[in-house]
Amino acid sequence: MTIKAKQDVSLAVVRRLPRYYRFLTSLRNSGINRISSLEIARRMGLTASQIRQDLNCFGGFGQQGYGYNVEQLKREIEKILFLQERLPAILIGVGNLGRALVGYLSNEAQGIALIGLFDQNPKGIAEINPEIKVMNINELETFCHEHSPKLAIICIPENNVQTMAEKLVEFGVTGFWNFSHVDLRLDEPVTVENVHLGDSLMTLGFQMHTKHINSE
Amino acid sequence: MTIKAKQDVSLAVVRRLPRYYRFLTSLRNSGINRISSLEIARRMGLTASQIRQDLNCFGGFGQQGYGYNVEQLKREIEKILFLQERLPAILIGVGNLGRALVGYLSNEAQGIALIGLFDQNPKGIAEINPEIKVMNINELETFCHEHSPKLAIICIPENNVQTMAEKLVEFGVTGFWNFSHVDLRLDEPVTVENVHLGDSLMTLGFQMHTKHINSE
Repeated sequence: MTIKAKQDVSLAVVRRLPRYYRFLTSLRNSGINRISSLEIARRMGLTASQIRQDLNCFGGFGQQGYGYNVEQLKREIEKILFLQERLPAILIGVGNLGRALVGYLSNEAQGIALIGLFDQNPKGIAEINPEIKVMNINELETFCHEHSPKLAIICIPENNVQTMAEKLVEFGVTGFWNFSHVDLRLDEPVTVENVHLGDSLMTLGFQMHTKHINSE
Repeated sequence: MTIKAKQDVSLAVVRRLPRYYRFLTSLRNSGINRISSLEIARRMGLTASQIRQDLNCFGGFGQQGYGYNVEQLKREIEKILFLQERLPAILIGVGNLGRALVGYLSNEAQGIALIGLFDQNPKGIAEINPEIKVMNINELETFCHEHSPKLAIICIPENNVQTMAEKLVEFGVTGFWNFSHVDLRLDEPVTVENVHLGDSLMTLGFQMHTKHINSE
């Protein structure tokens, strides 16, 4: 069972894979070993043909009439998403959100190894994870040269975030998980995932107030 | 200058409004008073015609040849997004992420009033915001009947989240900002905004590992 070339996979499919992964993890935790695409579809609110199509992008793991082996499919998606590797990551800005993310990244997240935390005022910060030192932001360059982090998690407000990100790219960072208020714009092949919680909340509030939006 | 009926607005347009809002706020903070759709387009990586089209959904606030008044456009988007009203909200699950969100909602977020916090073990929780009490989760029903929160922010793991949400709908909640691992599924007219930080991180990791995804 080989994984097909990933070059052909669209970002829309990739964005659905973590949903399958979460769903399969929850099935596995409930002791369910086998499931049909029809049943996945019903529970996830997708169509069975959509699911078969998505999973076929990677070779297709179902057997006609037998459905999918939950554990096996979960493991395959783990491989596809590179969750068994550990991208070295740093987090910049250890405020409330930064602390929450450190907790998540240390205890739950897969595919990532948090190797350094940075803040403008590291002394004011109570210890979060005794294994990860909080350093001053002016030690960033030296740290990057010595430890080569690939992913930077940005949890500071907007001032100079773009300039800082451009520097980090020079230091070898190739991906950004950006929680600042600005949309980072960096050239390929750098990857940016902007997370704007405020945007999500405003959209929710609008819908609650109106409930007259055309569905798309 | 009247705001057009919002019934005609697609969700795709609504999702772009917070981006305009953030952008205009940052312009205003830099002392810029007037901007053309062309310049907005250049800075935001959109097309000028897209921007004019979006803003025309609400009546159009630009004057041909003069561009947009930054402060005025910002205020109009505030009105469109109902940011001057305050949706009464509760937050359930005051762990690391819950605490981070309380900080954000108390200090930065607009359009919302956090009126109650709930946790399974409220005694173990240090005071976050002296004005908002942390209550036991079994006081939820009484609280809802007395204070009628409309929005629930879910920051607990997956166990029973769906059942709890269905109860909250009975108690009058009409919107959910859901940070749990499950996708909440509730019938119209309840609005659900699922935020899965893990999905976002997995997608980012995949792209960093491959960088061969077809653009869409």
